[in-house]
Amino acid sequence: MTRSVDLNADMGESFGPWKMGEDAALLDIVSSANIACGFHAGDPDVMAATMRLAVERGVGIGAHPGFADLQGFGRRRMHLPKDTLANLVRYQLGAALAMARAAGGEVRHLKLHGALANMAAEDVVMARTCYEAALDIAPDIIVMVLAATAQQEAARELGCHLAAEIFADRAYNDDATLVDRSLPGSVIHDPAVAGPRIARMVKAGAIITEAGKQIATRIDTICLHGDGATAVKIARSVRESLLAEGIEVRRFAAMR
Amino acid sequence: MTRSVDLNADMGESFGPWKMGEDAALLDIVSSANIACGFHAGDPDVMAATMRLAVERGVGIGAHPGFADLQGFGRRRMHLPKDTLANLVRYQLGAALAMARAAGGEVRHLKLHGALANMAAEDVVMARTCYEAALDIAPDIIVMVLAATAQQEAARELGCHLAAEIFADRAYNDDATLVDRSLPGSVIHDPAVAGPRIARMVKAGAIITEAGKQIATRIDTICLHGDGATAVKIARSVRESLLAEGIEVRRFAAMR
Amino acid sequence: MTRSVDLNADMGESFGPWKMGEDAALLDIVSSANIACGFHAGDPDVMAATMRLAVERGVGIGAHPGFADLQGFGRRRMHLPKDTLANLVRYQLGAALAMARAAGGEVRHLKLHGALANMAAEDVVMARTCYEAALDIAPDIIVMVLAATAQQEAARELGCHLAAEIFADRAYNDDATLVDRSLPGSVIHDPAVAGPRIARMVKAGAIITEAGKQIATRIDTICLHGDGATAVKIARSVRESLLAEGIEVRRFAAMR
Amino acid sequence: MTRSVDLNADMGESFGPWKMGEDAALLDIVSSANIACGFHAGDPDVMAATMRLAVERGVGIGAHPGFADLQGFGRRRMHLPKDTLANLVRYQLGAALAMARAAGGEVRHLKLHGALANMAAEDVVMARTCYEAALDIAPDIIVMVLAATAQQEAARELGCHLAAEIFADRAYNDDATLVDRSLPGSVIHDPAVAGPRIARMVKAGAIITEAGKQIATRIDTICLHGDGATAVKIARSVRESLLAEGIEVRRFAAMR
Repeated sequence: MTRSVDLNADMGESFGPWKMGEDAALLDIVSSANIACGFHAGDPDVMAATMRLAVERGVGIGAHPGFADLQGFGRRRMHLPKDTLANLVRYQLGAALAMARAAGGEVRHLKLHGALANMAAEDVVMARTCYEAALDIAPDIIVMVLAATAQQEAARELGCHLAAEIFADRAYNDDATLVDRSLPGSVIHDPAVAGPRIARMVKAGAIITEAGKQIATRIDTICLHGDGATAVKIARSVRESLLAEGIEVRRFAAMR
Repeated sequence: MTRSVDLNADMGESFGPWKMGEDAALLDIVSSANIACGFHAGDPDVMAATMRLAVERGVGIGAHPGFADLQGFGRRRMHLPKDTLANLVRYQLGAALAMARAAGGEVRHLKLHGALANMAAEDVVMARTCYEAALDIAPDIIVMVLAATAQQEAARELGCHLAAEIFADRAYNDDATLVDRSLPGSVIHDPAVAGPRIARMVKAGAIITEAGKQIATRIDTICLHGDGATAVKIARSVRESLLAEGIEVRRFAAMR
Repeated sequence: MTRSVDLNADMGESFGPWKMGEDAALLDIVSSANIACGFHAGDPDVMAATMRLAVERGVGIGAHPGFADLQGFGRRRMHLPKDTLANLVRYQLGAALAMARAAGGEVRHLKLHGALANMAAEDVVMARTCYEAALDIAPDIIVMVLAATAQQEAARELGCHLAAEIFADRAYNDDATLVDRSLPGSVIHDPAVAGPRIARMVKAGAIITEAGKQIATRIDTICLHGDGATAVKIARSVRESLLAEGIEVRRFAAMR
Repeated sequence: MTRSVDLNADMGESFGPWKMGEDAALLDIVSSANIACGFHAGDPDVMAATMRLAVERGVGIGAHPGFADLQGFGRRRMHLPKDTLANLVRYQLGAALAMARAAGGEVRHLKLHGALANMAAEDVVMARTCYEAALDIAPDIIVMVLAATAQQEAARELGCHLAAEIFADRAYNDDATLVDRSLPGSVIHDPAVAGPRIARMVKAGAIITEAGKQIATRIDTICLHGDGATAVKIARSVRESLLAEGIEVRRFAAMR
């Protein structure tokens, strides 16, 4: 049996006249694309163009909803009532389902964006609210979760399809949280380091922390970043390191 | 065979803290509701609440997309490229499909709003662009068109399900256009006039103009207005006048 | 020497086609109006119309900035960097200054809205950031603060003109905070109670808590609410009770 | 007496996380910057940062208001009532005045953006509405107009300070309108052509059309573009060609 793993990246984050990210280059590297749904980034035209590209390259399409905060790119925490949160996810997922259909594809997965994702990673009730809202609309959707967080716990409780992700370029603490961005070494900028590190984790089936500790966890997909000077280089390094270890890069299956 | 006609009204036009319209009262009168999709009015919470009410009352749900112009309520003309127009319709329809599903219902029809509708009533290419975009997503959707305009022509060319509408409270010119709002008599404010006038038109299968001319046209639905002091009174008058003439009020069927 | 106090209310909270509040009625009762600046409510047309009315009635104009969150009416907490907060206040205040000038008036005071106000009432650094940003633009502006909160502390530290406010319709705890809205008696709905209660506080120069404790505090202005069934009745009751006690209703002076 | 001319470019067109334009490079070349005011581009943070840079480099600050249409970058025509248009200009100008003051500078001029500018170039009533609205707020502001259009006519009628501009990279027809962008040669991409062409026009005090005709016109400023691959090169070429002809690059004076 061949071992495989998925590579994902956020895409479709341009808006109107403003371009963001190296979508075209990344689409040759990843197997899944998380596509912004118009609230924190992306507009209907950007969604359409990005989804068409993803369909052409055979890359799996994910809906990537966020807070309604363009200026803050969905990265500023907002405190919303539970129903509002559910409706926000439903609305954006619905829009994505339609745009994907028009592009000749379909939405396979859902991944929360930015502050919405961070809050859901800490709060199982919030994560559950968002995921249940999505499952109401699309019961077979695969929920992409941050491995070993409240997101994963919520998806497990719901018994839905899920894909657990780790980050290609972030160092981990011994409790499986990310090393704070303000600390040295928290972000891995060197492609020569990033690729082999991830290959080791996938082979081990574990997060390997900065201190070297192994935390066993399901790893279905690796999150690559799409912006920044070295983004594409790190993405290529991860892909090549995995292939060199005999690990295939392939869309995650729908697994519970 | 019993004759029947549909009654429709725009709904779900509140936004955030701002209320608009007499949705609860109108839902007892109409058989179809055109529900705003968040671009010119409505937000995900308003959509959810309005759709749940419509499902409870057995009222047919329609997606009612408009231009992205909250301040102008979608009533200000905007000139958009064809693709942008198509994506704008797809996005809003997709969101509506999801919200309806979560509310336990489904979107039966599509009706364009405000300036988008007015421009499409004059421009068959624009109408076609919007309707084709909707049919890409929902091939069985019923397109609600302004009777005897470019909207109807576009829907006929596409061969899709359609429902032709006339206005309960607007006077018509002899070329089937509406009497300009600035002219006396253009808007019918008297419930005692509005109801019988519409019953006559439905029985005749024709628009009856201000001058008394009959323009034979398909009439599947009557558009009632939801705001203004006499809106609910006119709506009741239309319903009662129709019933008094033995015309049933019932959702339009899916007909081409 | 005649004792006097100011009455203030939030106004200009309509947006586009959506109406909110009883501005016209309240302008006959209050001496200061806090006018929304377009981010959480109000649009340039609403601002212009409201300010013209205020000028006609001799009511003092205040800029009332809030978070950029129309759907949430600026009532949802957002976490913004300090500079972003300062620029958000400057931008909205600048717009208000211009709109007031075009209306033949001037902006006399600044009052924070909604979640921005609540967060600043708890956080002296945040309050100071907002007030300093306003004073950069308009050094003589009067900062309206919630009496006995971090808002007042920040304004005092800055040495700027300030006006301290208490609420006409909210019960107070013994530590000068508001009784939580979920508790019975937290909101005063009875005009016959509201007016005399406020007159007692103004005469005492103290907040009188639910338990009857007096907390001495500067009281320059009373906040009236503009929406809700009894808003105008409570406003009139407060005004009449004050006048009956020989307390004049008059715009606050510029005092440090 | 030394002859001089101003060079201007649109700036501050980034928004939230999205960058646009080569502001830093252009600020070394131009003498005036037209800074977006948050409706079609720019946000309060971008305005603050851009204005601070302009102040540091001694570049004149202009308010650059546009339609409220981020996705369309203010380039899509919208049809607004006269009062709405006036309030839209006042609001944005007021915000710009405040942001400039906080940055230690001041707003010297006003230039309309995108579709708002194009419509005002064709419609003297619309141009007048916008300029009068600005002059209400800032009576000494210099109105930057497209030379030989209805914009210039409106400013002349109002008797306000004005600065007439021509385009560095657009070919002109014999009636002083721009050659349509769809025609070959309409846009000048070659820096070696752009610079000398503009120097000739400034020396001649005339627009020189594609056919070689000279249309005498006041030329106070040259519009440079800030985006596109060759933008900065063309800007430098224009500056150097002017200097080589003994024409100084200097902010326009306040002249009627």
